[in-house]
Amino acid sequence: MTLQEKALEMHREWNGKLETTAKAHVNSREDLSIAYTPGVAEPCKVIAKDKEAAYTYTMKANTVAVVSDGSAVLGLGNIGALAAMPVMEGKAVLFKEFGGVNAVPICLDTQDTEEIIQTVVNIAPAFGGINLEDISAPRCFEIESRLKELLDIPVFHDDQHGTAIVVLAGIINAMKVTGKKKEDVQVVVNGAGSAGVAITKLLLTYGFPHVTMCDKEGIIGEHSENLNWMQKEMAKVTNLEKKTGTLADALKGADIFVGVSAPGIVTKEMVSSMNSDSILFAMANPVPEIMPDLAKEAGAKVVGTGRSDFPNQVNNVVAFPGIFRGALEGRATQITEEMKLAAAHAIAGLVPEEELSEDNILPEAFDPRVADAVSQAVKELI
Amino acid sequence: MTLQEKALEMHREWNGKLETTAKAHVNSREDLSIAYTPGVAEPCKVIAKDKEAAYTYTMKANTVAVVSDGSAVLGLGNIGALAAMPVMEGKAVLFKEFGGVNAVPICLDTQDTEEIIQTVVNIAPAFGGINLEDISAPRCFEIESRLKELLDIPVFHDDQHGTAIVVLAGIINAMKVTGKKKEDVQVVVNGAGSAGVAITKLLLTYGFPHVTMCDKEGIIGEHSENLNWMQKEMAKVTNLEKKTGTLADALKGADIFVGVSAPGIVTKEMVSSMNSDSILFAMANPVPEIMPDLAKEAGAKVVGTGRSDFPNQVNNVVAFPGIFRGALEGRATQITEEMKLAAAHAIAGLVPEEELSEDNILPEAFDPRVADAVSQAVKELI
Repeated sequence: MTLQEKALEMHREWNGKLETTAKAHVNSREDLSIAYTPGVAEPCKVIAKDKEAAYTYTMKANTVAVVSDGSAVLGLGNIGALAAMPVMEGKAVLFKEFGGVNAVPICLDTQDTEEIIQTVVNIAPAFGGINLEDISAPRCFEIESRLKELLDIPVFHDDQHGTAIVVLAGIINAMKVTGKKKEDVQVVVNGAGSAGVAITKLLLTYGFPHVTMCDKEGIIGEHSENLNWMQKEMAKVTNLEKKTGTLADALKGADIFVGVSAPGIVTKEMVSSMNSDSILFAMANPVPEIMPDLAKEAGAKVVGTGRSDFPNQVNNVVAFPGIFRGALEGRATQITEEMKLAAAHAIAGLVPEEELSEDNILPEAFDPRVADAVSQAVKELI
Repeated sequence: MTLQEKALEMHREWNGKLETTAKAHVNSREDLSIAYTPGVAEPCKVIAKDKEAAYTYTMKANTVAVVSDGSAVLGLGNIGALAAMPVMEGKAVLFKEFGGVNAVPICLDTQDTEEIIQTVVNIAPAFGGINLEDISAPRCFEIESRLKELLDIPVFHDDQHGTAIVVLAGIINAMKVTGKKKEDVQVVVNGAGSAGVAITKLLLTYGFPHVTMCDKEGIIGEHSENLNWMQKEMAKVTNLEKKTGTLADALKGADIFVGVSAPGIVTKEMVSSMNSDSILFAMANPVPEIMPDLAKEAGAKVVGTGRSDFPNQVNNVVAFPGIFRGALEGRATQITEEMKLAAAHAIAGLVPEEELSEDNILPEAFDPRVADAVSQAVKELI
C-alpha cells in the first residue's frame, strides 16, 4: 500500500482527525446545574463586567482558530474551503499534540479580503489566538496586518512566520557550522510569495545586511516590473547593491540560498558559483530546488529541505505550537518580531554546540523539549 | 458553599469546559506523513472533486457550530459574545455528553443581522450543522430562515425548536393523563418571543385548532398594535375566535397554558378559571409563572416547569443532542417540521403508558435511551 492509499484509508477510518471533548462531565442533575443552567450564569456575569475573566472561566484561554480560505493549500493551490479541511484539521491536531493547545479548523467559504477580515473579527471572541493558514499572497499580507490592528489577540500567518522562524534557526546553526558571519554573507531568497517575503523580513530583522530576493523573472529590485505591493516594499529594503539578472546571477558569490519556489530550478553549476561552504535551504515540496546530494557534490556544506527523509528538515511544527502556547500562557496581544527572533534562537539552541554538524542543525520535530523551549522564550518577552 | 459559588469555582478549575482532542495521534514521522503532509493531500484532492467526500474524510460529518451573538442569554439578556461563552461551551459539552456530537462554541462579535448571516455562511464549510443559540427575537427568526435558505446543512435555533419539541412531547403525554383531545382543547401560550412563537407554530403543525398567544399587553390578535413582523404573522394564524383582553381573559375556559414569560404572573384565580384537569407548563426561569403547588391547589392536573427540582421538567437536553445526531447521521440538509413532530413523539413515547402520571410525563434528561430514540426518529424521515 502506498503512502497515498494509506493516508486515504486512515482518513476514512478517522472520519475526522479531531474531536471536541468535555472537560466538564455531566452525569447528574447537580453536574448539569453547575456546568450549565443555572450555575453557568455566574461566570457569564463576571465576564460581562470584566472581559479578562474570559481567560479564567472559558476555553478562550487556550484555544486557537486555524483559519483558511483554501486559496493556497500545500502544493495543491486554490482548492477552496471544504477541500482544505483535512489540512486544517491536521494542523489543529498538531497544535494539540505538540503544544497542548486546543485548535479549531475554520474553513471560510469566501476569498474576498474584506469578508475574510470581517468574519475573523466576528468569530474572535471564542478564541485566544488566530492562526492563518494557506491563504494566497499578496492577500495574506493585508489580511494579517489588518487583523493584527483590529484584534487584541495574537494573529499569526504560519506559512509566513513559522517557516521564517525555522529557516532562521537553521541558518543560525548553519553559520556556526561553516564559520560564516551574518555581517559578511550574501543571502539569496528565491520565491516572493508569503514564505519568501516573511523569511526575507525576518532575516533583515535579524541583521543580515545583504539579502537579495528573486522570483520567476530573476533578481527583484527597484528596476523590477509586475511586482505586487508587498514585493515593491521588499524591493526597497533588499538588494541594496542594485543587482539585476537571473537567479544564476544572484547566486554567484552568494553564501546562503533559501528556496521557497519550484522543483529543480537550482543547478550544480549555480551552487558551484557560490562561495565555499555554502548553505542551501531548498524547500520546494515534495521535490526541492536541488537535491541535497547534488548540492553537496557541487560544494554546498549544509543543505536543508522540507522533507523528513533528508537531514535538516525545515518543519514548522517545531515553531507554531510553542509560539502559540507561550503567547497564550503569557496573554500576549501580539506575536512580535522580537518573539519570532527569540523563538528562532530557542529552536537553534536545542542543538548543543558539540552536536552541531552539517547534517544536524535543527532539532527533531518529535523532540519533546521543543515546544517548552519555544513557549518559554516567547513568554519571557511578554 | 452556594451553587453560585460552586459554579464559579468549578469554572475556574476547568478553565474551559471543552477541549479539542486528536483522534489521529502523531507520534512518529510516519504518523505525521499520513495525518499531515504529504499524505493529507489525498483526501483534499478527493474532496476537491466531490464535496460529499468531506463527510467521509473530515470531522464535518459529526460537528456542529453553536453560534450566538450573546443578545439573549439565559435570564441574563444582552450580555454580548464574550460573556456568553460559558453558556455556549456548556451547550457544546451537552452536545457531546448526551449526543456524541462534536460542537464548537462560536460567539459572534456582532449583533447585525446581515453580518451574522454572512459570518455563519462563511464558516459553514467546517461544520455539519448550525445550532443557533440565545439570539434575540425577532432577529432570530430572520437569521434562521435566511440561513436555512443559504446553507445545505441543518440550521436549528434551539431556543425556539428545542423548547417547542419538548413542550409538545409533554403536552402529548399530559393529554393522555387528562383524557383531553387536541381537537377540543383551548391552548394559551404566554410570551411571544423566540420560544413562544416556535411553540405556537409547532402546536399548530401538530393540529391544535384553538391556540391563543398573549404578550405583556394581553391577547394577541389582528387588533393588536406594536407587534413585530413575526408576531403579526402569528396573529393571522392564531386566536381564530378573535378574542381580546388580558391573559386572565384568555385563560377563562382554557385547558392548556404554556408560559415562556415572567415569574408569578399567573394567579390561583386564573388557574381556577380554566377548565378542569388543566395542564400548565410554567417555564419562566428560575421562578415559574405560577409555582406548581399553587397551580395544583387551584385545580391544575399536570404542571411542568423548567426546573429540575419539580416534576415534569421541560429540558431541551432531551431534544437537541438526538436531533442533531440523527440529522448528521442521516445527512439531512434541513431539520423539517416532520422531524420536530417525530422527535416530540419519540420523547413522549419514552414514558410507557403504564408509567404515565400527572407527575411523570417526560423522560429524565439522563435517561440514556433518549438521544437514541430521538435520533432514530429523525433519521427515519430522511
